[in-house]
Amino acid sequence: MKPKRLIFVTNDDGYTSKGFRAAVNLAREFGDVIAIAPDRVQSGMSQAITITAPLFLRKVEEGEGLTIYAFSGTPVDCSKVAFDHLLRETKVDLVLSGINHGSNAAINVMYSGTMGAAIEGSLYGVPSIGLSIDDHDADADFEGAVEYGRVVVRQVLEAQEHLPRPLCLNVNVPRCAASEIQGIRLCRQTRGFWREEFYKRTDPHGRDYYWLTGAFQNIEPEAEDTDEWALAHRYVSVVPVQTDMTDYRQLKALGEVL
Amino acid sequence: MKPKRLIFVTNDDGYTSKGFRAAVNLAREFGDVIAIAPDRVQSGMSQAITITAPLFLRKVEEGEGLTIYAFSGTPVDCSKVAFDHLLRETKVDLVLSGINHGSNAAINVMYSGTMGAAIEGSLYGVPSIGLSIDDHDADADFEGAVEYGRVVVRQVLEAQEHLPRPLCLNVNVPRCAASEIQGIRLCRQTRGFWREEFYKRTDPHGRDYYWLTGAFQNIEPEAEDTDEWALAHRYVSVVPVQTDMTDYRQLKALGEVL
Repeated sequence: MKPKRLIFVTNDDGYTSKGFRAAVNLAREFGDVIAIAPDRVQSGMSQAITITAPLFLRKVEEGEGLTIYAFSGTPVDCSKVAFDHLLRETKVDLVLSGINHGSNAAINVMYSGTMGAAIEGSLYGVPSIGLSIDDHDADADFEGAVEYGRVVVRQVLEAQEHLPRPLCLNVNVPRCAASEIQGIRLCRQTRGFWREEFYKRTDPHGRDYYWLTGAFQNIEPEAEDTDEWALAHRYVSVVPVQTDMTDYRQLKALGEVL
Repeated sequence: MKPKRLIFVTNDDGYTSKGFRAAVNLAREFGDVIAIAPDRVQSGMSQAITITAPLFLRKVEEGEGLTIYAFSGTPVDCSKVAFDHLLRETKVDLVLSGINHGSNAAINVMYSGTMGAAIEGSLYGVPSIGLSIDDHDADADFEGAVEYGRVVVRQVLEAQEHLPRPLCLNVNVPRCAASEIQGIRLCRQTRGFWREEFYKRTDPHGRDYYWLTGAFQNIEPEAEDTDEWALAHRYVSVVPVQTDMTDYRQLKALGEVL
């Protein structure tokens, strides 16, 4: 008999979010689950780590093949405390981060705490999947995300021995009924950026304050090999993610300048 | 007569840090300066943005060709409020982020708030430089960083018309006397990762808590084209940085699996 698999689950919306519960339940189909999620919403926390504050780890649930912790750190801190502390001597088969309330396609991968935690997991040599749905609603319908997440998790677990490491996948699911999803597309990250609006208001003490809000600018909306194109056409997008940020094109151009 | 240049300065150690003041003074050699820095230490904040809280912007200093603001957001929020609000209609010639207390070489580029702000600036089409010194001391000696930072700033301003965009440089200066620095090396990001230790302690109420601390694992210490090699050999490292995180190698491997 094969030893039971162990899946590490985390997210950035906190341990009480609906998407986290959906990810935990999905992971349990494939093995035992250790889950560590932030004790509060940590959206947009990117690859942030906690350097200047102590971190509190609290067990919040224990069941058959399942333990859930709430952690006072960032999503990346959750992955770090899992692999460098709690599971230091334990083989982990997969990291599942999410299910995130909101798309992490395109450059959102850089701002996302869900993807931060998944990327961090992949740096420990464990295949990692960040799973997100293009719907910010706290009560979003996760049926399609669970159905297609299940397919990706199964394929990664089956194929992992044949794939190079680190292995990290940014999986995004369109906002539509599960039955309307057209399938899975392997993509590259769409090129683009955010332009923000700062809404100015005044507090009761007369101090001005701002709310950050904005819109993504897709600079290649027609490119069919991108994740934004896939989502717009009701496909699940899968982008493999790596951490070498060197701009090799500039490296060449700068060689003639510096 | 040429119009005076405008430099935007930011950092992640906060507007009161010694390194920020050094960056402001360096930038003033090249033009007028608008500076927005976090109102508290924001080290390790990566590309984090503030989604769930209002942001306060406060003018803290005004002088001849110089205005400094303290902002309650992350380093990336500082760049965003500069380009999407304060300087929305203004041509900015350069972003200078730092001088950071601590190296941002290798994968530190991903965790760094200093580099987060620089990367964000580059996404607005403005040449951006993140400048850091391999010394965490609050009272670090910035002489070498200023001297070589000056060279890089001048070269970027002179060559910018010939360089593609986005343009973002991760510049790191070794911890040694300025006179011992061997020169500037154009590099790629070193491959490696952090392994952490979690120091466990107990608070007066009996709750366990942890301090995160760790060490960088360089998996290619002999590679002479990397930033870690340059710093170890007392060179200033310059790595151009980009934001497409797609793992093209995996894209090929996964094509046979998914």
